[in-house]
Amino acid sequence: TKRRRNTGPNFNLLLLIISQLGLHTVEGVWPLPQALASSAERYSLNPQAFDFAYGKRSAAQQGCSVLDAAFKRYFTLIFQDYTSANDVLQLSEDKPFTVEVSVDHDDCESYPKEDSSEKCEFEPIYLWQSTTNKEIDDFPRFQFRGILLDTSRHYLPVQAILKTLDAMAYSKFNVLHWHIVDDPSFPYQSYTFPDLSSKGAFHPVTHIYTQSEVRRVISFARLWGIRVLPEFDSPGHTKSWGKGQSNLLTPCYRGGTPSGTFGPINPVLPSTYQFMERLFKEVSSLFPDSYIHLGGDEVDFSCWRSNPTVRSFMQKMRFGVDFTKLQAFYMENIVNITSALNKTSVVWQDVFDYHKRVMVEVWREGCYLCEVRKVTKAGLRVILASPWYLDQAGPKHNWARYYSVWPLAFKGSEEQKKLVIGGEVCMWGEYVDATNLAPRLWPRASAAAERLWSDEKQTSSVAKAFPRLQDFRCMLLRRGIQAEPLTIGHCQHEYLGV
Amino acid sequence: TKRRRNTGPNFNLLLLIISQLGLHTVEGVWPLPQALASSAERYSLNPQAFDFAYGKRSAAQQGCSVLDAAFKRYFTLIFQDYTSANDVLQLSEDKPFTVEVSVDHDDCESYPKEDSSEKCEFEPIYLWQSTTNKEIDDFPRFQFRGILLDTSRHYLPVQAILKTLDAMAYSKFNVLHWHIVDDPSFPYQSYTFPDLSSKGAFHPVTHIYTQSEVRRVISFARLWGIRVLPEFDSPGHTKSWGKGQSNLLTPCYRGGTPSGTFGPINPVLPSTYQFMERLFKEVSSLFPDSYIHLGGDEVDFSCWRSNPTVRSFMQKMRFGVDFTKLQAFYMENIVNITSALNKTSVVWQDVFDYHKRVMVEVWREGCYLCEVRKVTKAGLRVILASPWYLDQAGPKHNWARYYSVWPLAFKGSEEQKKLVIGGEVCMWGEYVDATNLAPRLWPRASAAAERLWSDEKQTSSVAKAFPRLQDFRCMLLRRGIQAEPLTIGHCQHEYLGV
Repeated sequence: TKRRRNTGPNFNLLLLIISQLGLHTVEGVWPLPQALASSAERYSLNPQAFDFAYGKRSAAQQGCSVLDAAFKRYFTLIFQDYTSANDVLQLSEDKPFTVEVSVDHDDCESYPKEDSSEKCEFEPIYLWQSTTNKEIDDFPRFQFRGILLDTSRHYLPVQAILKTLDAMAYSKFNVLHWHIVDDPSFPYQSYTFPDLSSKGAFHPVTHIYTQSEVRRVISFARLWGIRVLPEFDSPGHTKSWGKGQSNLLTPCYRGGTPSGTFGPINPVLPSTYQFMERLFKEVSSLFPDSYIHLGGDEVDFSCWRSNPTVRSFMQKMRFGVDFTKLQAFYMENIVNITSALNKTSVVWQDVFDYHKRVMVEVWREGCYLCEVRKVTKAGLRVILASPWYLDQAGPKHNWARYYSVWPLAFKGSEEQKKLVIGGEVCMWGEYVDATNLAPRLWPRASAAAERLWSDEKQTSSVAKAFPRLQDFRCMLLRRGIQAEPLTIGHCQHEYLGV
Repeated sequence: TKRRRNTGPNFNLLLLIISQLGLHTVEGVWPLPQALASSAERYSLNPQAFDFAYGKRSAAQQGCSVLDAAFKRYFTLIFQDYTSANDVLQLSEDKPFTVEVSVDHDDCESYPKEDSSEKCEFEPIYLWQSTTNKEIDDFPRFQFRGILLDTSRHYLPVQAILKTLDAMAYSKFNVLHWHIVDDPSFPYQSYTFPDLSSKGAFHPVTHIYTQSEVRRVISFARLWGIRVLPEFDSPGHTKSWGKGQSNLLTPCYRGGTPSGTFGPINPVLPSTYQFMERLFKEVSSLFPDSYIHLGGDEVDFSCWRSNPTVRSFMQKMRFGVDFTKLQAFYMENIVNITSALNKTSVVWQDVFDYHKRVMVEVWREGCYLCEVRKVTKAGLRVILASPWYLDQAGPKHNWARYYSVWPLAFKGSEEQKKLVIGGEVCMWGEYVDATNLAPRLWPRASAAAERLWSDEKQTSSVAKAFPRLQDFRCMLLRRGIQAEPLTIGHCQHEYLGV
């Protein structure tokens, strides 16, 4: 019999049931569910007599757009060869089979939120049997399971982003952190400030994200159960902003005169904050998610230091020569802007050193759990990224490295542990674009995904996980995801390469 | 105006002329030609009035299948947007333009050979001018410019191999070294010994190369100017052979009894050589190339040492306990078989230590030029692979590393230098299959390609080569090759990723 393996986002759990009952085997289920009742019985499934249904206790009922769309997608995936192959039909029995899905919240028409429930139950209804058993009960270990895509160092065509969302869902990632702009290019099309992309993008037409494209990404992501969290990193990492917005970046000086080069955003001009307020107002209304990432990392003080206007502002504000105070002044202003727009701010860990009021993303190497401990001790929520910089390649950066991460292995109270809301795989774009994005992400990112979804005790062994991840990788190939091999071997259906 | 850049195999040089005369710029030409006359004049090309022709002095004339096919391919590449875009037509003039191609040998209907001439001239004929100038004169620095593909550790679908041949041609690679079988699987379909693939392949139907598929690869490669050099590595690296051919591998012993495991091919049985003779007879008639690669690397002696029959054979032959003598005995027998089949044998460098009669491929790390020197001193031809193991990834394994290789930088006579016939990029398959083959090969392999094609003095600077290689990489994308980025930036036409 054909082997099939199934996993997916939220709703992929019901495929697990099918794998229990039908042609399927359980090995390739990834990430591992929290609870799974399995019996030795096996039935063949007949696509003509198979259906999904809403459980009676389910908060969502018929017409739920998210679940209806998922039913359709997964029906196709379960019966992939339905139209072409005969073996499924030959093997199948005529007994009707229904999978009842129950969720505890009706989040059907809204965008996925930070507190969206991802708890669900799957109950197979055998009409030829009197017993019904709840087969799967599942929920994530961490609420925030993200992938960062960097569309500034290289432009990623919208198609590549949508394909990534699809692949993310199979590993139950639920946040796309869209690092949309940075030094090299500004591809975000602003209606308020059209010059930002027309002058700051690699190309004003082909290398931008129009607002309708952004909306397309967001609405696609919604049906896949994925939030889209935009990042507009400042005051550093903003070289491309300066091309379309004059007087925004700090003019650097050399020997008492402007050198012609520019540094971070100029924090001393009121016009800066007026600009940022208008930009964030637009961004906040385009991106429905309640989070916004403000960056704040790697600010180089040398240009600020060289600028006489900045220096006199420092004096006026009694900052002395401590430029972190100037940086804090800037970030507080930006956080106030986004707070007024009802957004929850996230910043890179650098900001925590001088501003201890917003959610922190830990990214630096070294003792990252020390940093997690510090941040949670201050009562702030934290997202862990340090161990999952997947833009790095090479034999040492293998899946096992990304699997063997223990986000809560620091000394701290239960309250502190709860503040670790999740983690994120970062795919920085220096050497990555649509040509190598997929094989560099998959299946290595899936290792991080299981760490963030599954019970740690059930998934502590790299050796045990290995064959299951190999199976899962073959399933990704079958679903058209260009996931690279883990080691010598083969899949039943290979990627054809063209 | 649209930028277009053109390079390709042998015949791609004529595109260089076009780049001189038409809409094209010269920066992206890769590898750099030996001689190129350039003028400041620029003309737009009209596809309606453009043609290729055979030069009067050319050894090949109309009807030459290789050149006719190349004319067709490159016409399409030059006028890529011919059918859809209007800009070319709008820009173009009505003046007829012909590129005359002259080659010095008529290799039109045969397979490319080791001594095939790759010298060619391109002469643009302006019918609206009286002067004609020979614009390009080119020839390779090294005769052998190969890429090794490993189809045993992972199966590569035929489509992926053909796509690689296409990409190879753009960088002027002219040998596909097909490492077709190895320990993990035996995908080559032998008619003489059908069990080899039916039992030794990952799958007997989907994961084999039928003989007609092998022929398809060879005849495709011919029209692209590429030789196909098969490798049947023995006596080590043969685990998969044992599955379909009993009594071929050496039974290993533990404590005086067979352990159930098997080692290298058994060199003491006459049946071994009868088998190898029949296999190589079939292989030799299927693969037209005059070279055959016999492997001979990494032979583990422990199993031979454990086997009492092998030990008594050693005694009989007066080899004592020197198993390299047994290995030499084996390799000599194999070389005799292939010599009788009129094939030129190539072996990995390990063999040179005890058998100094055939062409050597140097692959070990360390002072590889010391090895090149030794081999050439013994009067043998050598192929250099050590510095070009591109299966390795990571920031240190970048294109500049593969560019900064000087194959002749050893102390030796002119005669010795001539024995260095070329080099080879190795793409071993432990972590590589069709999902990541293209971005891992390109454009890094193109760096090696220029080293093997172009004049060393004209191409000694990494810094000068960099922008040209970036342009070339964009051209590869435009031609549908999934070449990964070298650094931050963009191409006019990005790879769409789906």
